[in-house]
This record gives sequence, C-alpha cells and structure tokens, in this order.
Amino acid sequence: MSELRKDPVSGRWVIISVERGKRPSDFAVRAHAKKGGFCAFCAGNEHTTPPEILAFRPDGSRPNTPGWTLRVVPNKFPALRVEGEENRVGDGIFDKMNGIGAHEVIIEAPDHNLTLSTMPLKSVEDALLAFHYRISDLKKDRRFKYVLVFKNEGEIAGASLEHTHSQLIALPIVPRLVEEEIEHARHYYEYKERCIYCDIIHQEIKSGVRVISENQDYISLAPFAPRSPFETLILPKSHESSFMPDGKLSLLAQILQRTLRQIDKALDRPPYNMLIHTSPFKEETNEYYHWHIEIKPKLASTAGFEWGSGFYINPTPPEEAAKFMREAKI
Amino acid sequence: MSELRKDPVSGRWVIISVERGKRPSDFAVRAHAKKGGFCAFCAGNEHTTPPEILAFRPDGSRPNTPGWTLRVVPNKFPALRVEGEENRVGDGIFDKMNGIGAHEVIIEAPDHNLTLSTMPLKSVEDALLAFHYRISDLKKDRRFKYVLVFKNEGEIAGASLEHTHSQLIALPIVPRLVEEEIEHARHYYEYKERCIYCDIIHQEIKSGVRVISENQDYISLAPFAPRSPFETLILPKSHESSFMPDGKLSLLAQILQRTLRQIDKALDRPPYNMLIHTSPFKEETNEYYHWHIEIKPKLASTAGFEWGSGFYINPTPPEEAAKFMREAKI
Repeated sequence: MSELRKDPVSGRWVIISVERGKRPSDFAVRAHAKKGGFCAFCAGNEHTTPPEILAFRPDGSRPNTPGWTLRVVPNKFPALRVEGEENRVGDGIFDKMNGIGAHEVIIEAPDHNLTLSTMPLKSVEDALLAFHYRISDLKKDRRFKYVLVFKNEGEIAGASLEHTHSQLIALPIVPRLVEEEIEHARHYYEYKERCIYCDIIHQEIKSGVRVISENQDYISLAPFAPRSPFETLILPKSHESSFMPDGKLSLLAQILQRTLRQIDKALDRPPYNMLIHTSPFKEETNEYYHWHIEIKPKLASTAGFEWGSGFYINPTPPEEAAKFMREAKI
Repeated sequence: MSELRKDPVSGRWVIISVERGKRPSDFAVRAHAKKGGFCAFCAGNEHTTPPEILAFRPDGSRPNTPGWTLRVVPNKFPALRVEGEENRVGDGIFDKMNGIGAHEVIIEAPDHNLTLSTMPLKSVEDALLAFHYRISDLKKDRRFKYVLVFKNEGEIAGASLEHTHSQLIALPIVPRLVEEEIEHARHYYEYKERCIYCDIIHQEIKSGVRVISENQDYISLAPFAPRSPFETLILPKSHESSFMPDGKLSLLAQILQRTLRQIDKALDRPPYNMLIHTSPFKEETNEYYHWHIEIKPKLASTAGFEWGSGFYINPTPPEEAAKFMREAKI
C-alpha cells in the first residue's frame, strides 16, 4: 500500500509508493552529454557576455579577459531588471508592480566540460563564496527582500547553456515557498521553543535510514516526505538561520560535491535543479529558520494532478533513495 | 520592462514578460500525433481493464463488452487504494497515514482518435455528467474529503495512454492548493461580503481584454497572473460553489469544447493539463468559493527557480494569449 506522508515544515502531503518503489534504473532520463560548439561562458569569449560584476582572477588579469577561475555576469535576458522603481499599483481587484530585481549568472569554472561534481573542490568553495559575496552586495539595495540562488544542470532541468553555471535572482518580495517554510517554522518555534529543522536533523541522525552523507558540520539527507524521487537536502547540523557560515566553507563544499557525486553515480548524471533557501534580509538572524540546500534530480515531469492539487506522487521512498546514494561507489 | 503580478485568489506573484511576449509560434512543443497500436481503452478490449464502475450504454449492451459511449474503470496502477483504514500515526516529528483513496479513469469515447476538442458535443456533456456521477458516489464514503478530476492530454503532459481519458483521485485530505484558494476566498468574503471570483468575473467582463469565450452561463478567460503561457480558466458567471450545475450541462460542454478548440488552433494541438477545482465535501454549498476548470497547455518545463520559490516566470502576457485564442479561427 502506498503511504501519505506530511512534510513537517511545509505541511505538504505527498503520496509515497512504498510497495512498488522505482529504482534508479527505472527512470528513463539519463546522462546529459555536452554537445560543445560556441559557448559564451568559455574562457576567451568574455566579450560576448555583459561586463562582469565579480570575478576571481588569481593571476591578476584584467576584467573581461581570460585568466579568471570564476565569473559573475548579469543575465543577458533577465527576468527582472535593476533599473527603475517598484511602482506598486492596483488595477481594480488586481495588484502589480514593475519587474524590479537583479538576475545574475555565476560561471563556476572556465572549462566547458566541468560540473560541480567534477571540478576541483576549491572551485566549489569559490562558487559558494561568490554566492555569499553577491547576496551580501545585493542586500544593500533596500528594494530587495530576498535573493534566490539556484542552478539548473542539464537541458531537461531548464539550463539553456550547457557550460556549468548557477543563477541568482534578487526579488522585491519574499518567495511564497520560503515564506511558507518560515511561517510554519516560526509557528513550531512558538510552540516548542526549538527550531523544527534542528529537531528533524536530530531525529534523522538517530534513525539513520534517510541520511546520505555527513561530516563534522553538515548533513545531507532524503527528506521524509519528498515531492520527487531522490530529492535531497543539505543542512548545517547546528542552528544557522542564514547562508552562509564563516569558516566552514571547505566542509560545506565537501558535502555538496560528495552528495552531487552520489546522485551522479546512483542516477547516471541526471539533470537536476539545486537551490538555496535562507532567511530573508529583514530577519537574517533568528532562532526558527534553518538555511539549507535543496537538490532535485529531474527524473519525471509533473502532470495535471500535481499542478492542480499541490500534491505530489513520488514513486521512490526516500529510505530507498538514501540507501542507493549511500551505497554509490564514488 | 517585465511586470510582477499577484493572483488575487492564491496570493501568488508571477513575473510576466511584457516587453518580449512569446507568441504561439515561439513554443517548440507541437501537435502530439497518436501512434496507435494496441489500446486497452478501445472498444473491444474491455477485458484488459479492471471491471467498469460506470458506463453509458445507449444500446443496452452488457457491462465490459463493446457498445458503450463512455466508460469509467479503476486505474490499473492506482496512486491510492480504496481498501483499508487511514491509520493516521506519528513517527517522532513526522506524520503519515495509509494511502487510502480512489483512482479512476474516465474513458470519454470508444474511438481511439477522438479528443475532447473533436468528439461530438454530446460526448463532452456525457464526460461532465460522468464526473458528476462519480463525485456524488465517492462523496458517500466518509473517509474522502475531496475528489480531484483532471486530464493529462498528450505524453508530454503526463498521459501514459494516448486514447482520450480523464482521471479522478478521491483523497482523505483536501489538496493544499484548493485549501489555499478557499482560505483566501473566505478571507475576502469576510471583508467584502462578496465572492472574489464573482468580483473577478465582473471586472474581466467589463475590461474584456482577457476574455476568451463567453456564453449565457459561462466564461473562459486568461487569468491576470497566470503561472504559464496560455493558462485558461472556465467559470460559471453566476455564483456556484460546487461542480456542477443542474440544467446547464450543454452550455458548459459548449464553452469547454470551444475553449479547447481555440487552444488547439492557437497552439497547434498542444499537450495540456486540465482540472476541476470545487468546494470540498464538508462545505459544498457556500458563498465564498466558486468552482472552476483550469487548463494549462504544457509548453515549457519548470526549472529551479519555479521549484524553489513558488514564483513563476511567464513569457506571454495573458492579454496577448487571450487575443490569440479569441482570434483563432475554429
């Protein structure tokens, strides 16, 4: 019989097919080969992107020339633009405002063929550091309430360019899903005087069945009520409300790369989406919300039921997914 | 500049690209040809499905034999099962229950090549009637709180069989998205003493820019803040809290088929998802919630940003989508 499970943070119920769990080999989506060809993100083509906002240039090379190891540029086709005022207005029953925000691209390596799984660990550290720098900078713009950092790896997961890159969007409002998590976490805190994520981590470490990887400061696990197969969370083990920690960079990079390698191995380098959930600027330090990374391999498309109900049917129990990933020889 | 728009019912913000609106021809997804081959839903193959729950047999033929014009059967691979008890239990911080529910398939026509757009209008009426009959029957089971009727048309939209069919899932909980709509609608009603959908319809008829089709009792329109291109709503013009109306069946079938034909014409028979949102059983008759049909052509896949934020980027303003559909020669 399948099981209905409730995610303790979001309150979302999901249907988990316990009896006929899909194994990694049951998913049709497979390794996304890179096709090559001209690439605006490759070293030597710096002039084809908008001018860089930030770059790591260990050799002291000039901006917008080769020599960089990481580069941040504005998105050429931004969903939101930095210039202008919000101009919130009503139109009868409707509300709207200008599409103010920032949309940037973080190119994590100059080499076309690397991914977060295969690049040197130092480059993963640098990527995390770049996320942190950009968030800190964008925070100064008082119009922005939140910065969402995310990555689409592989065309099926929404990547329009195959060269490794992450994106960030600074928003004049806190995204709905983050607000929901925070609201529920705050409610839990009011009742228990403990962070709900801290409680989850405590229980998960004790049971062990959904743990994927662990080091001194971080844990990766399959959540109890995942929306889709092989969904994975990475969290700091001690309470931290906002991305990101001082001094723990190398341990975070280590568990992130290790977890991505486990996913790559278990599912044969699937396309995936990754993102960071952190506290909004106005409540950066708090006792109730716990920042984390979410990773979702893109193995299936959602259909009418999911779209219309907010309910997800997941054919792989997280206990099995975690086991496959734990046992992956990386 | 793009625009941030807020859906008045769900409270969801979306980003609408006003400046570079995607036209129908910009979407790569196209007409889904039927491949044929053996089909369990075709007339003559009744023995390959589980025994029928309901069938319309104008010729008085025996159950599970040819002669039917519409057939409802249990889903062979159900997400939820009818047998058993809910058995709600906690596991530390987590909550779960057995996967109790019903999962049925409504085969709207015996002919493999028909769709809701191309079948006789009478068959569309019959499909709506069958939805109504099945909901009314499942309502008697006190374990169920909601029945979600939905349709995945085309493989890309999640249809595993190409023969026209809808599905329904009876659930022991009210789906999250329905609950959210109801909560906001109730809140609006407390403040205004009017149904929010009635107010939206009033404003939309007055402005006209987002109206797609209209008849005496129903309206189809592009919502002000759609999550994806060419998203469409069909609503009764007068307040009705629950699907479905007595005596208006033919007008509802008419606008549904007409709207689907407009979508087919504007987008060259795209895959789509369709579903019905109605009041839950426990509050079937009320002044605040207004049942409706939602249709979403499956033109693009969602990526990390949408998944992580609950925020949608829509490249086609609904005013343009509605215009394309209005002007489609059907």
